[in-house]
Formats: sequence, C-alpha cells, structure tokens
Amino acid sequence: MAHFSFQEATDLVYNCFVANGCSGPNALQTARVVALAEADGCASHGLFRVPGYIRSLRSGKVSGSAVPQVSLKAPSVIQVNGDGGFAPPAHHAARSLVVDTAKSEGIAVVGFVNIYHFSALWADIEPICAENLCAFAFTSYLPAVAPAGGTKALFGTNPMAFGWPRTHALPMIFDQASSVVARGEVMLAARDGHTMAEGVGIDAQGHPTTDPKEILGGAMLPFGGYKGSAIALMVELLAGPLIGEVLSFEAAAIDNADGGPPRGGELLLVLSPDRIGGADWSTQSEKLFGKISEQPGARLPADRRYSNRQRSMQLGMNIPDSVVDKIKDLM
Amino acid sequence: MAHFSFQEATDLVYNCFVANGCSGPNALQTARVVALAEADGCASHGLFRVPGYIRSLRSGKVSGSAVPQVSLKAPSVIQVNGDGGFAPPAHHAARSLVVDTAKSEGIAVVGFVNIYHFSALWADIEPICAENLCAFAFTSYLPAVAPAGGTKALFGTNPMAFGWPRTHALPMIFDQASSVVARGEVMLAARDGHTMAEGVGIDAQGHPTTDPKEILGGAMLPFGGYKGSAIALMVELLAGPLIGEVLSFEAAAIDNADGGPPRGGELLLVLSPDRIGGADWSTQSEKLFGKISEQPGARLPADRRYSNRQRSMQLGMNIPDSVVDKIKDLM
Repeated sequence: MAHFSFQEATDLVYNCFVANGCSGPNALQTARVVALAEADGCASHGLFRVPGYIRSLRSGKVSGSAVPQVSLKAPSVIQVNGDGGFAPPAHHAARSLVVDTAKSEGIAVVGFVNIYHFSALWADIEPICAENLCAFAFTSYLPAVAPAGGTKALFGTNPMAFGWPRTHALPMIFDQASSVVARGEVMLAARDGHTMAEGVGIDAQGHPTTDPKEILGGAMLPFGGYKGSAIALMVELLAGPLIGEVLSFEAAAIDNADGGPPRGGELLLVLSPDRIGGADWSTQSEKLFGKISEQPGARLPADRRYSNRQRSMQLGMNIPDSVVDKIKDLM
Repeated sequence: MAHFSFQEATDLVYNCFVANGCSGPNALQTARVVALAEADGCASHGLFRVPGYIRSLRSGKVSGSAVPQVSLKAPSVIQVNGDGGFAPPAHHAARSLVVDTAKSEGIAVVGFVNIYHFSALWADIEPICAENLCAFAFTSYLPAVAPAGGTKALFGTNPMAFGWPRTHALPMIFDQASSVVARGEVMLAARDGHTMAEGVGIDAQGHPTTDPKEILGGAMLPFGGYKGSAIALMVELLAGPLIGEVLSFEAAAIDNADGGPPRGGELLLVLSPDRIGGADWSTQSEKLFGKISEQPGARLPADRRYSNRQRSMQLGMNIPDSVVDKIKDLM
C-alpha cells in the first residue's frame, strides 16, 4: 500500500490526465472528483478507475480538451452541452448558473447532453445541496438490466441520486443504481469464483442463476422487482428522451466498446425549499433525521462515506501499489 | 353483484358525497376519481373506499365545502392550499395553471398543502401527462414503514408516481408505495388468517415475521431494502419539509384517528419534454416502450389498468352488493 494525502492523490490523477491530453481545467475538475471518491471509500469510483478514463481519452472517444457550453433555454431551464468531455467539467461550468437560477426562480432543470459519465452521481449534487438546495440527478448507462418479467438486458444500471441540505452538517445524499447490485460486484465474483445471491441476475435464456459468469452473459435484475424496474424505466426516459439524448441501447450501438461508459445524458433537478415551502424546512427535516438516527441499526445515507472522508482528510489514505503503478505507467 | 355503468357509479358516489355535506364541485371531482379507480380494477381505491371518505366528512376532519386556493409564488412555482378538503378538488382547481406553466416555462413545481389524500396518485397526473407533459407526484401517509436496518415504523407508505406522455396512447404511469406490499394486503391477510411472504414486515420488537397481525403491530419494510428505504425518506422530505407540510409522524400526532388519511401534503413536478429536450421525445420513448413490449413477460406499467378501464367503459362493471348497500346506507 502507498500512503497519499488527498492533495497528493488529486495531483497524481491530475498529472496523469494532463499527460494524456486533458486541458488543465478539465483535468483538475475530474481529478478532484476521482480523489474525493477515493477519500470517501468508494474505491470503485476512485483511483482504480483512472486507467478506464485514460483508455477513453486514448481511444479518442472522450475529448480531454472539451469546452462545455451552457445556455439558458427558459428562466428555469438550462442546457449544458458537454462537448464530448467528462461529466465533472460540464457540471463545473454550469454550477453557478444552476445555483443562482434555483435560488431566484425556486427551481432549475438542467439537461446535460454529450457527456461521458464515469463518476458517481453524488459528486454532481453535493456542491449544490451545500447551497441550501435540494437536488435530484439521473443518468443511464449501457444495457445491463432486464425489465421486470423480461429476459433480456435493456435498461442501463441507471443510477439516481437525491440530496437534501443540512444547515449544520454535510447534505443527506443517496446515490443508487436501479440494479440489485453494481455490475462491478458481479465482475469481481466472476473473477474470484464466488456465487451471487439469488435474485441478482438471470442467464442468457432468462433463467434465474447465481453464477456471476452466466449473469454477465445474461442480465442483472432491478432492485425490488417491478418497483425498481419502474425506477430504471423512469431514469431511462429522464436521461434520454426528456433532454434530447440517446437511450441506453442506442448509446451501446454507437459506442466504440473501449470499456468506458458510452456517450449519454444526465438530468439534474434543483429545488429551493426556501422558495417553495418556506423557512421551516431545516427544523422539520432535522426532526426526521433525528428519528432515524435514534433507531439502532438505521442510519442516514452517506453517513459512512462522510466518516471515511473525515478520516482520509485527517490521516490520508492507503492506495494499493498496483493501482498507483498502473497510473504511473500511463504518464 | 350489482352492475353499474361508469356514469351510474359516478352518480352513486356523487350523491353520497352531497348527502354528507360536500359541495357539488367537490363531490363531482372526488366521485370521478373514485369511479375511475373502480373502472381501472383498483378496487381498494374504488367504491369500497367511500365509507372511509364519508367517515372523515362526518368526523369533521375533512371539509366537504373546501375552496382550494391557488397562488403563483414564482414563474414556475405554484402553491395550492386545499382548505382542508379532499385532494381531487385541489388538483382540479390548479390544473389549468399547472399545465400552462409547464408548457410556457418548461417546468412547474406545485406544492399542495392542507389536503387529505384518499385517492391513488396516478389520477393526479394522468390528465397532465395527457397534455404532452411528464410528471412526478409524491405524498406521505401515517407512519407504517421502518427505515432499513431500523425496528420502528417511521415513514408513511409514501407512494410516488411518475408519468410519461404518449402521442397515440394513454400515458405510461407507475404509482407505487415505498413498502413491499400495500397495508391493505396485510390487513386482508390478518382477517383471512393467511401468512405473508418473508421480508414484508417485522414485529414490535423488530424481528422478521410472516404473521400479518404481528406486522400490523410492528412495521412494514421498504421494498428493495435500503434502496426503497431511501425512496421512502425522499418522499417524506418532498411531501413535507420541502413544501411546508408535516412529516408522517407529525401528521399522526394531530390526526383524529377516524381511520382515514391524516392531513398532509403532495409535491407535483411537471416537465415539458418539448421545451427541455426538443421534438424527438415521442419517437425516442416509443422505441423504448417497443423494446419492453417485445420481451415476453414484460409489460408497461398501467397497461393492465388501461385494459380494465376499456372493458369497464364498454361493458360496465360489477360491484359487490355489500359495497353498494353500505354506500346507500350512508345517504
């Protein structure tokens, strides 16, 4: 294991992005998000992911020099064209307009098109929720999940995130895929020869299986049966047709199969509790959070990430040598 | 069984509401929603429910003569004060402004406060989605669902609905509670001496149980584990603190326990695909719906309801004599 401070980890990723043709601003925004995922204990979105980012730069799929364009289509409607780059620079370019719009109009709806979303959704909304705003984010992905009752992968793993501001704490945020488990977990189980729990996936004929290799050749199942399937369908519509972007199966058809996410869209909805409901929102929601925390065994979404982050920021983090070596080899 | 046309069923309910002090317009809007649920095969929200509505009128909890007040707080932000009445008249009062706002501004956010929500959420959004708009609805309810990992009922069954317009068909709509099953199913099982599936609920000590009586004394569980719990938490925040209304546990504390829903709020979000993404939304989304329908076993949410409705409108519907007699006894 190699020991890194948050700043050292950010610098390593930044330098690797710049060495592979990223502009300074794009490298900085993306590196910060990658290092923050590592600090939060989300290793699958942390430095482990850098070779995937670099592959998509080298394959020419993602533009490291993208210049995102932000336009206001109506007083509360913003469109962001990511210019074929990573998601974090597009969010950074739009953020101040998004926050100002939500605060003045009460709501902002933001359609991101022509972006490549490698990162976690919580990173997109945390800075917005820190401004006393509530936010949703939705994005789709390569077809991997069968609709309830069906037999073939159609929906992406289609995550959604929701965040709620807290006056004296980091925002409450959840960020969850529409599949029972993440695809990465199935891949790890296949590599290590483990079986999956029942209900995670089906084989290529649509039959239930616990064999991760069969699931990878078949489809994952949505969480919670038909209810999670409805959520996956909703995300597909919001991150595609609503904002003028492609569906998961269309994204797959035009992807260059370099292993990274396909081109896609993301919908961001931002609401101001101050403007919509009035001044009591914080007192009210803290009562609810208190009632959750007083139940042994229950906890607020993101609490584990935030305690990991606090430890990482104070003590630094240990990153496997193999991960660090791979990044250095790419510079 | 008694045979009724849709109009005859609506008239029966209307007359019962008027006989119990409802104004004509309030009786009409509410009766239509009740009769439509019956026509759609949703018996639990159909005529079976009328005695519950009447109990809440007679107990003085719900105002039959409510006059909902609609106000525009910002170009895209609408507030509807239901004046202590049922939800359907509040929706009817706001609908034309909501639709016009979403079409002109691209989005409308609508906070309903001081309403009593006995009906299904799909009825609130179907007329809006019929105007080529996409809509979300969220409402909370009496505490019935434990947070994931917890042991005590805290969240309401907290349904959410989402609808997407279709140019040549009725809108795609799903409407689902955050619990694994509806509370009514647990009550029916308790009455009939059946057991529930594992994972539906816990007893008063927080232990898993399949005994419906133990579940009614304990708590129901959210669908899909911690992911459904996060959805229940989100609904609680959106239908409460965001719009200036109470949380489920606060609603319970002020309720008169007449058996009907407590006072509460509802959030409606309405988006215009035409204004946000552009003209291709319908072609795009129909491609997705086609891909779902071609998988044997998979189907679009609401398809079963719509085929029930078609049959009911053509052939009428059969309603148990006991249900009809109870309504007639209340007039």
